[in-house]
Amino acid sequence: MHFVAGLDRVRQMRGVLCLYEGVCSGAADGYARMRGAPAAILLHLGPGLGNALSNLHNARKAKSPVVAIVGEHATWHRKYDAPLTSDIEAFARSVSHFIKTVEDPAALGLAVSETIAAALAPPGHIATLIVPADISWLPAAGVAGLFVDRPIRAQAAAENIENAARVLRLANHRAALILGGSCAQAAGLQAAGRIAAKTGARVFIDRSAPRVAAGIGNFQPTKIPYFPEDAGAALAGLTHTILAEANVPISFFGYPDTPSSPLPEGCESSTLAALEEDGAAALEALAEECGAPRQHSFSAEHAEIQPATSGTLTIDAMGQTLAALLPERGIVSDEMITAAGPILQHLSRAAAHEQLTITGGSIGQGLPVAVGAAVACPDRKVVALQADGSAMYSLQALWTMAREGLDVVAVIFANRRYRILDIEMRRTGAPPMGQAADNMLDLRRPDLDFFSLSRGLGVPATRAATAEEFTRAFQAAVEQRGPCLIEALL
Amino acid sequence: MHFVAGLDRVRQMRGVLCLYEGVCSGAADGYARMRGAPAAILLHLGPGLGNALSNLHNARKAKSPVVAIVGEHATWHRKYDAPLTSDIEAFARSVSHFIKTVEDPAALGLAVSETIAAALAPPGHIATLIVPADISWLPAAGVAGLFVDRPIRAQAAAENIENAARVLRLANHRAALILGGSCAQAAGLQAAGRIAAKTGARVFIDRSAPRVAAGIGNFQPTKIPYFPEDAGAALAGLTHTILAEANVPISFFGYPDTPSSPLPEGCESSTLAALEEDGAAALEALAEECGAPRQHSFSAEHAEIQPATSGTLTIDAMGQTLAALLPERGIVSDEMITAAGPILQHLSRAAAHEQLTITGGSIGQGLPVAVGAAVACPDRKVVALQADGSAMYSLQALWTMAREGLDVVAVIFANRRYRILDIEMRRTGAPPMGQAADNMLDLRRPDLDFFSLSRGLGVPATRAATAEEFTRAFQAAVEQRGPCLIEALL
Repeated sequence: MHFVAGLDRVRQMRGVLCLYEGVCSGAADGYARMRGAPAAILLHLGPGLGNALSNLHNARKAKSPVVAIVGEHATWHRKYDAPLTSDIEAFARSVSHFIKTVEDPAALGLAVSETIAAALAPPGHIATLIVPADISWLPAAGVAGLFVDRPIRAQAAAENIENAARVLRLANHRAALILGGSCAQAAGLQAAGRIAAKTGARVFIDRSAPRVAAGIGNFQPTKIPYFPEDAGAALAGLTHTILAEANVPISFFGYPDTPSSPLPEGCESSTLAALEEDGAAALEALAEECGAPRQHSFSAEHAEIQPATSGTLTIDAMGQTLAALLPERGIVSDEMITAAGPILQHLSRAAAHEQLTITGGSIGQGLPVAVGAAVACPDRKVVALQADGSAMYSLQALWTMAREGLDVVAVIFANRRYRILDIEMRRTGAPPMGQAADNMLDLRRPDLDFFSLSRGLGVPATRAATAEEFTRAFQAAVEQRGPCLIEALL
Repeated sequence: MHFVAGLDRVRQMRGVLCLYEGVCSGAADGYARMRGAPAAILLHLGPGLGNALSNLHNARKAKSPVVAIVGEHATWHRKYDAPLTSDIEAFARSVSHFIKTVEDPAALGLAVSETIAAALAPPGHIATLIVPADISWLPAAGVAGLFVDRPIRAQAAAENIENAARVLRLANHRAALILGGSCAQAAGLQAAGRIAAKTGARVFIDRSAPRVAAGIGNFQPTKIPYFPEDAGAALAGLTHTILAEANVPISFFGYPDTPSSPLPEGCESSTLAALEEDGAAALEALAEECGAPRQHSFSAEHAEIQPATSGTLTIDAMGQTLAALLPERGIVSDEMITAAGPILQHLSRAAAHEQLTITGGSIGQGLPVAVGAAVACPDRKVVALQADGSAMYSLQALWTMAREGLDVVAVIFANRRYRILDIEMRRTGAPPMGQAADNMLDLRRPDLDFFSLSRGLGVPATRAATAEEFTRAFQAAVEQRGPCLIEALL
């Protein structure tokens, strides 16, 4: 309550109300990805933190700095079993790199600084500060918080760069760079592209890279595919991987009779830059070391793409329209799940933009991340490409878009099915589905009506059942400012 | 996946799809409260469990038996840092009394039995079973699960009963019975009423009692009030409390210069029945010991109540209508927050019914609990009395009501404000709110439109702006079967 009341005294702090804590934590993730600085989320005791955990899990995998402030009972009230009493640190432990409970009002300022510093420590962490109520309301004598500088990332060791150059010389096209963390942003990609052009090395983007530059003008390596067979095919023939802010590739799930790693047997991995180091600088140094040309243009001939204007609405038609109309510097929040493959393929021909993906596999982050990205970058269009089943995990985000007038267009891929589970069901060798099982994967009866849901949350909506309708709706969305939703009926 | 596929082979298991895990866990709580038996919820790795935690917290405080089955990566895939990899036991620890990870397919059957037994052990627990994917898909040789009998609760010690009788003889109206757990159901209340009639003892219901019998024909003691001053006034003059499946009363929150306990200083407490004992039987034994009359009727003169049919829509008008029209044996899911006081007062004059309250203070359980209660008791009308702000935590529950054709009427108290926080803000001594703080408590701009939201989730809705409209809508709702929603514009 005192934190909320303080918003009127500390006007540099912008309060953004979300209707559910999972929206807060996802928005903090989106904000951090675009700003590199933490947002603070204010949560109510253990259960409020509980509601935020799923998107904090995603933020943790994205290495996004997030400061979670969790209110707690007054210090002397904690020992009783009041209704909201819980072990808040137990809730926090599942996702937090840093947890501190403040026990003395005079220590609060420093504790806040320490929490922000912990969140910012490379590569970025979830830092949780638990503040008992009396710590807020008692007078705090003594020192206030300290200004926390944004830390400078450590440079990768020179021997890493020499070693990588040697590997590339020996293995060339049997070696691959794997780009994660900040290396999938424009500078890292540019350097990786120069290296590839010079050495013949293959380049892949780690699926967990939180922010990926894409579209015309960028070097656009393949993302390591989701399914292990596809990943295995993409990575076939490699004898070396060089990791730039990335871990050794691992399959999303384990499946019967399928190895956890999609890498060929015996493939060796070495680190160019660790997760907490400056991978883009290491890539640039490696490009120099390899003697790669300074200038290298990836501006593919910009074939004029036309939006789809006729026929039934298919994922390909949507991809064509999105590629044609996506504004330059647009931010795509990608929670498309099964539609992601074909759509991202189309978006490689779009104007230069950035993509924010679901890093921790926990669905319900797409719309919240869009909220945070839009707050962080008010001058850029945010396009949330959102599967329908996962949209229902955090649809409350639309209301915050409306209240804050955020420039977001949400596109719902309404196939009315947990489509990915059809595939996972087959893959795990489960017996063929009967009616009861099928029913658990089905989002019909009743159909989710995103048109009404969006309007109920204050966001204007349209529904598109044909390619022409979708194109008209998306065109209108990019021409206006402010939130809107398009329910694409697939 | 194998668990889902199994639904077609084990037809005694009814699969109910919820769009969000918080709905599952709240529904399991509602089911357990009405059946005394656990529902199983199926959750997807750590983050899926994370989404369920808030309502599992409430279920834990309600002592509801719940079996949480959490899918995990295949045993050999766990050691890698895949996107969904997390410490699931860390997620589980915040709410679970029992946690087991199965490491061998042959052990799965017994582990399930053990989990069910742990959930059922009085007074009821959250039991979490973590099942790696390969444990599901590998053939399981050997023993299957064992049938788990519902345990019989232990009787309270005879000396507890003698001691309570002695306290009542000595202290009479300066003694109070505090009824929690199962004691607030009809049998326990009846016995407590007989004791009160004979001895002059005061009787209170613990705020955390998960299921309370109310309305005409029941002995209806006061619930211990929410705010410590009100609770203090209600409990003033007591020298003894006798606890029947209840803990010593504790304020919901601690406040500046306010003690944690609302009991008078020096008031002693003794236990009639511990949380895990049979409190209703102990109350009956105590009634015998006190020589209370066997028969005692609490059927107050059933003054004919008329629904409100004119004027603006006020909380009192709603209470009058609800009291007049609530069907006999109705189940009220109460997440009214600030409206609860006056509405429950009115409902004391309604036909006999039962009330399921928010036990752990974590909002967003009202609609999910209604789902579970309706699944458990298909022949009883469920009335979810729901504040608007908290409705937005788990509104997805409406879709499950529609899909399952559950006989639930959801009444939304649409005051467009986190009203309780206005009060809490003052109580904690925070400085007067400015515009920025006020904005964080406000649910306007844009207004939440529950009419559209409900239809978007497949539940027919009406909107009531006058007492007459509300009465007409509620009358129609009780006369039909199946889900509907009334947005009451306050």
